[in-house]
Amino acid sequence: SVMSSGKKTPATLSSDSVINFARGDPTMYHSYWSKLGDRCTMVIPGNDLMSYFSDAGNLCWFLMPELDHAVRRLHRVVGNAVADDDRFIVVGTGSTQLFQALLYALSSPDEPEPISVVAAAPFYSSYPEETEFLRSGLYKWAGDAYSFDKDGPYIEVVTSPNNPDGAIREAVVNREGGKLVYDLAYYWPQYTPITHRADYDVMLFTFSKATGHAGSRIGWAIVKNKEVATKMVKFIELSSIGVSKESQLRAAKILGVISDDCQDSGPNKEETLFEYGQRLLSERWERLREVVERNGVFSLPKYPQDYCNFSGKYTDPSPAFAWLRSKEGLNCDNLLREHNIVTRGGTTFGVGSKYTRISMLSPDEEFNLFLERLSAIKGTGKGNCY
Amino acid sequence: SVMSSGKKTPATLSSDSVINFARGDPTMYHSYWSKLGDRCTMVIPGNDLMSYFSDAGNLCWFLMPELDHAVRRLHRVVGNAVADDDRFIVVGTGSTQLFQALLYALSSPDEPEPISVVAAAPFYSSYPEETEFLRSGLYKWAGDAYSFDKDGPYIEVVTSPNNPDGAIREAVVNREGGKLVYDLAYYWPQYTPITHRADYDVMLFTFSKATGHAGSRIGWAIVKNKEVATKMVKFIELSSIGVSKESQLRAAKILGVISDDCQDSGPNKEETLFEYGQRLLSERWERLREVVERNGVFSLPKYPQDYCNFSGKYTDPSPAFAWLRSKEGLNCDNLLREHNIVTRGGTTFGVGSKYTRISMLSPDEEFNLFLERLSAIKGTGKGNCY
Repeated sequence: SVMSSGKKTPATLSSDSVINFARGDPTMYHSYWSKLGDRCTMVIPGNDLMSYFSDAGNLCWFLMPELDHAVRRLHRVVGNAVADDDRFIVVGTGSTQLFQALLYALSSPDEPEPISVVAAAPFYSSYPEETEFLRSGLYKWAGDAYSFDKDGPYIEVVTSPNNPDGAIREAVVNREGGKLVYDLAYYWPQYTPITHRADYDVMLFTFSKATGHAGSRIGWAIVKNKEVATKMVKFIELSSIGVSKESQLRAAKILGVISDDCQDSGPNKEETLFEYGQRLLSERWERLREVVERNGVFSLPKYPQDYCNFSGKYTDPSPAFAWLRSKEGLNCDNLLREHNIVTRGGTTFGVGSKYTRISMLSPDEEFNLFLERLSAIKGTGKGNCY
Repeated sequence: SVMSSGKKTPATLSSDSVINFARGDPTMYHSYWSKLGDRCTMVIPGNDLMSYFSDAGNLCWFLMPELDHAVRRLHRVVGNAVADDDRFIVVGTGSTQLFQALLYALSSPDEPEPISVVAAAPFYSSYPEETEFLRSGLYKWAGDAYSFDKDGPYIEVVTSPNNPDGAIREAVVNREGGKLVYDLAYYWPQYTPITHRADYDVMLFTFSKATGHAGSRIGWAIVKNKEVATKMVKFIELSSIGVSKESQLRAAKILGVISDDCQDSGPNKEETLFEYGQRLLSERWERLREVVERNGVFSLPKYPQDYCNFSGKYTDPSPAFAWLRSKEGLNCDNLLREHNIVTRGGTTFGVGSKYTRISMLSPDEEFNLFLERLSAIKGTGKGNCY
């Protein structure tokens, strides 16, 4: 589960306090938005946003037109996805709700058995539980896409860049009857070079990972097929009668400011969110790689440099998570816990316990302490029991 | 479905425009909040509300402490429900999400078959669809509680005052193994006399119906049992990783202003939300009853006057919906549609088509037009086909 190990880190970090990197709380971005001052401040009068309806003429009747506009514009400015006017935008209470709306939209009560849902391991740890917890007769989790060999229709979730390991991915099953869901939560310039405008049937994005505003619970889907979009809207109507208008309006404002800054070519232009994120994350990755290399206990994936159409230069990927592997095959999560570092172990992602996932989006103070503790870990033994 | 017939009424109402009373969009309250000016204005800086977590030490870790406090205080001030500190508050994306969280919390994957979910007819039209749409193996809709006679565990939803018919209700099945969910969305002084502090195991409330802020998608449950509350939190974590913080904070502010005004005993005290709502609704009910009596085609339920502990006087109930019955047994929804009045017919509430439900919470202009058209309807025949 995403949150079950989520006790908050105390404000003052003492030398033996436990630091939590198990969740992907994107608190790193706080300092960026502080720097922007009042530019993103929302003011909402008491008599505003009262109706259930946002845009009764839109297929997605609870989508605020401001957010619709801001989302399409930002994708155009960044060049990471095609969100032209012939595509449907469906807003959700985070992309978590949209993922479940898609399971509903891509399945059918008329099928003789539940449709299989797969993803290539290592896969996002919440997919299996989100698919299974209500014991739906419409869909069921069928595990690792690499070992999936059942005939008939299936849904494959392709997360790219991947959570947990940052890999750029394509579908792996590639059989008839397959329906693909692209989770592009991390396909933004701070995490990876933008190499093409994604143009898949169904693409998921989330405000949390794009800008760091996880508390707003805003995600959006870009959908080509009208019937799929209609069923997603129906799901969201039945599960929550729409999505918070306050959050939608705030997301619209913040995404709008990002687009403004990206398009600003004046002499006093601000550092954009993407430049800031990329700068911080690549510094962190560099320092992490140094520590990992020096102590010799772990390894990290290597990512190929690529040309980023957005920044106009070659950049290194700097994923939101570090996918750490114990060289000696030890239980990596346990090993780190002994040093008061809480991470999320490989087994929850469908692979072995020699892997663990570490959030790279923590505040500076926590990240520094993490590196300090990681540096102190030495090779085999030392009383660890595996 | 709540929304499928939800085309927005045009801003200018011409004599032949269709007016929609099928949904319960509480737009009537807009004028009240306009009158209060800046007192409920929310200001949210761009760097605020970013983390997934609201209160990591709380069982409901995504509940904003401000909302927790405001909800408990308002119930204390109004006296409609016990929300003492030993009760758990669980926030949801509307009470719609909380209803589904309860189905999950009160069922078990270890049972041999899905638990039956029932409600006494006429029941809220969305309960069956919300229970059924994912074909869960944990719970299933079992219809009218009056005719339920299956042994074993069951969930009974008790809506009081009832949607659609405004009746004060108690559980009807009363058998061993029953789990009760009290949906108290309309148990506020503008709709009904507050006769006691409700103190059930599980009680649902919603911001939409209490204050008219339907677009915020905020509901809350008051729960006695820790295990039930824990499972509800788990459901909301899995379905949306929490609830919009912007909406929670805004709800906290608005509920706080209502409590302030209710506690104000000064000479210049404002008309409270409840006084305003009660005044408007009782005027509307009086006018509606006059029209219904005059044209002789329909009848309406009668509600007993009762002593309201909150207002300190005897008041008449003035429900949020009018439950209209055709005296001649005609299809009431069809009859009204012929006069360009869209309502929600009795069959969706589990009873006959001679009933239909009409929202009493529309803006003045629409309500006036409704009465005008209703007045014009004459007894049998006149080319109507039933």
